[in-house]
Amino acid sequence: MDVPRRRLLLISNSTLHGGGYLGHCQQQIKSFLGEKVKRILFVPYALHNQDAYAKTAREKLENVGYGVDSIHEFSDPVEAVRKSEAIFIGGGNTFRLLKALYDKSLIQEIRKRVLEDGIPYMGSSAGSNAATISINTTNDMPIVYPPSLEALGLVPFNINPHYLDPDVNSTHMGETREKRIFEYHEESNTFPVLGLREGSMLLVEGNKATLQGVTGARLFVRGKSPTEHQPGADFSFLLANSNLHNP
Amino acid sequence: MDVPRRRLLLISNSTLHGGGYLGHCQQQIKSFLGEKVKRILFVPYALHNQDAYAKTAREKLENVGYGVDSIHEFSDPVEAVRKSEAIFIGGGNTFRLLKALYDKSLIQEIRKRVLEDGIPYMGSSAGSNAATISINTTNDMPIVYPPSLEALGLVPFNINPHYLDPDVNSTHMGETREKRIFEYHEESNTFPVLGLREGSMLLVEGNKATLQGVTGARLFVRGKSPTEHQPGADFSFLLANSNLHNP
Ligand SMILES: [Ca+2]
Ligand SMILES: [Ca+2]
Repeated sequence: MDVPRRRLLLISNSTLHGGGYLGHCQQQIKSFLGEKVKRILFVPYALHNQDAYAKTAREKLENVGYGVDSIHEFSDPVEAVRKSEAIFIGGGNTFRLLKALYDKSLIQEIRKRVLEDGIPYMGSSAGSNAATISINTTNDMPIVYPPSLEALGLVPFNINPHYLDPDVNSTHMGETREKRIFEYHEESNTFPVLGLREGSMLLVEGNKATLQGVTGARLFVRGKSPTEHQPGADFSFLLANSNLHNP
Repeated sequence: MDVPRRRLLLISNSTLHGGGYLGHCQQQIKSFLGEKVKRILFVPYALHNQDAYAKTAREKLENVGYGVDSIHEFSDPVEAVRKSEAIFIGGGNTFRLLKALYDKSLIQEIRKRVLEDGIPYMGSSAGSNAATISINTTNDMPIVYPPSLEALGLVPFNINPHYLDPDVNSTHMGETREKRIFEYHEESNTFPVLGLREGSMLLVEGNKATLQGVTGARLFVRGKSPTEHQPGADFSFLLANSNLHNP
């Protein structure tokens, strides 16, 4: 198989405590998109109020120097993807987002644009879940029922955004995040899960993946102990096809 | 419509901090099942290790005075439900549980036994989610894909077990529980959600529903502000058919 042309910036969270929308990743966005990209196609489907969401994203990204079109303002969203120079899928509810991508027949077109045409893809939170092999490790409530949990499959593994370490002082008896990911790996044919703490993001260029941001990540692979990874870590091995399944 | 014969005890959580399995609800279980029930059919499908789970439940419930059969030990689980005197569905992962109930064709049979034959149904956590109209407000990760999010429909509303008040000191930017339930109610045709704090449980007898336990509950109805309810609160109005939808 040819090396996919994919270029992805998968962000754990759009807003970091104490900062504004996309505040903590402004520099990464700029160096990721570079000078060539002029306009970004924003996908606000994960939130209910799409007009307000597009307004927030537009203001922020225009400040960084990019024009923004919101896909919900097009009568033909597939055509909007076809003509886009770069795609940014924002966070919110992952089930709602994925259902909209299926309902509007956008899955194949986005895959084609990113994997074949090489246009840059940015996702934050739900938008990062949507980029992976499936949404099996979203934190969101299943408020709607998408036709499948399979997602865009731009990478052959899962992400858990907003990854949260167990709180040793908690008296709450609901499962910790780690416990929930272990439950996923109790099922057969399940994929590696990269737990991206808030403040972390994964940069993918072709077959190279690098951890960016400041907070590190925790990697869960079925049948193995979880491992800790610092900013700068090379995660390219997660992109190898042999890691697709670990049954 | 005739008054359903249902008798339900829907528990937020099986283990309370500092206590053992079912420790905090032993008295409620005893007075709910009474003297007539001799054996309970335990449903361990929400956990991966069903043998270990059945062993835990059996030890605990035998101490309270009941014999326990685990449904996973029967070659014909539908037949096991048909012959049961009482059903207890334990917690774990709600998606895994619901998928198993569909895969084993148990939905209709459990409904019939509870709503028509009037056998007592106990659920804890995922087992309480499964009793309601849908699992749209589970806290669990979607580790598997059930054929629908519609659940047993023994009551015409949703439950959020392990309900957790917002932590005002948190710097984590993931949605609070309340925010997640609001996201559910942004969708049309969505049902009331009863947030049962750990230590709370709902007793349903026919068309009467009463809050038990010590920690209270928070009720979310689409288009209204959430309301607080103390132990002893009468929730019978949630059982009225007119509350089925609030579009
Ligand atoms: Ca979310
Ligand atoms: Ca659970």
